[in-house]
Amino acid sequence: MHSLDGEGKKKLLARLARIEGQVRGLHRMIENDRYCVDVLTQVSAVRSALKKVGLQVLDGHVKGCVRTALESDEDAGDDAIIRELLAVIEKFTD
Amino acid sequence: MHSLDGEGKKKLLARLARIEGQVRGLHRMIENDRYCVDVLTQVSAVRSALKKVGLQVLDGHVKGCVRTALESDEDAGDDAIIRELLAVIEKFTD
Amino acid sequence: MHSLDGEGKKKLLARLARIEGQVRGLHRMIENDRYCVDVLTQVSAVRSALKKVGLQVLDGHVKGCVRTALESDEDAGDDAIIRELLAVIEKFTD
Amino acid sequence: MHSLDGEGKKKLLARLARIEGQVRGLHRMIENDRYCVDVLTQVSAVRSALKKVGLQVLDGHVKGCVRTALESDEDAGDDAIIRELLAVIEKFTD
Repeated sequence: MHSLDGEGKKKLLARLARIEGQVRGLHRMIENDRYCVDVLTQVSAVRSALKKVGLQVLDGHVKGCVRTALESDEDAGDDAIIRELLAVIEKFTD
Repeated sequence: MHSLDGEGKKKLLARLARIEGQVRGLHRMIENDRYCVDVLTQVSAVRSALKKVGLQVLDGHVKGCVRTALESDEDAGDDAIIRELLAVIEKFTD
Repeated sequence: MHSLDGEGKKKLLARLARIEGQVRGLHRMIENDRYCVDVLTQVSAVRSALKKVGLQVLDGHVKGCVRTALESDEDAGDDAIIRELLAVIEKFTD
Repeated sequence: MHSLDGEGKKKLLARLARIEGQVRGLHRMIENDRYCVDVLTQVSAVRSALKKVGLQVLDGHVKGCVRTALESDEDAGDDAIIRELLAVIEKFTD
């Protein structure tokens, strides 16, 4: 029930590989006692990058799962999928 | 000018190692076409963990650099350190 | 095309009336030179209250407009409504 | 112990008056069943405006209270003021 196409999936994996590198970079910055403000700037950059990952996944989810469920003639499960979507948006805005 | 003590530094490095593992886990989830909502839940968890890292670094920064600068008798640089602190807080609240 | 029922609308209007009062309260706090930390605590409370308003409106939007559009047999406009939903979520997570 | 100068205070009061008007506008939008996406866009605008209010108050707090406390020769209370500052930043980033 995953809804990323090949291209979107490749892009997402590349993003996550880059984020993993950034987190390792943060680890090194702490080890080397780098100036706190530089560390904080980097933490913000990684959080932004993760937010973009989340928005891309959400985009795939709405265009795929949610749309398919709502367009199908079977109504069973529609409420559940909408409740789940709203819960995930709420968590994401924390 | 870094201001984490040994204990705080160790804790921070452990947190970042855990976050790196979580990001690798996200990579695997995408590769294995895991359900979007589970991926999004995990993205939120990693962002929360990074926020805690940022708050710990900020805590060290205020207790260390900012305090030392403001308590010293030399006033030169006080404005700069305060402007920098406010800029970093602003970035962090995005 | 608005999708709050009578009960939901009443609740939302009550929330907004309360928020208006809180903002007036903030105005008074500043006029009376209240301690910054108390002001900041109140600013956070109002922002949380507004976030709840936003989530309630989003809830109504997804359950109403989005659902109706996707369930209708006409496909024209489905892409637009999904793009719009994602744009609004993105703005909301800023 | 409030630390906004006359100019800053005037600016802040003007901001809050504008925000109060925006919240009243939101109330009207709901009453008139305006399209949810327009309501959500407006909710985001008000939250941004409140964030700016918060950052301005924080700016005054750091430049005023925090600085004065740390620069004074009396150390009693320094820890408390720093703990309070960090608590307020944490709340603000929620």
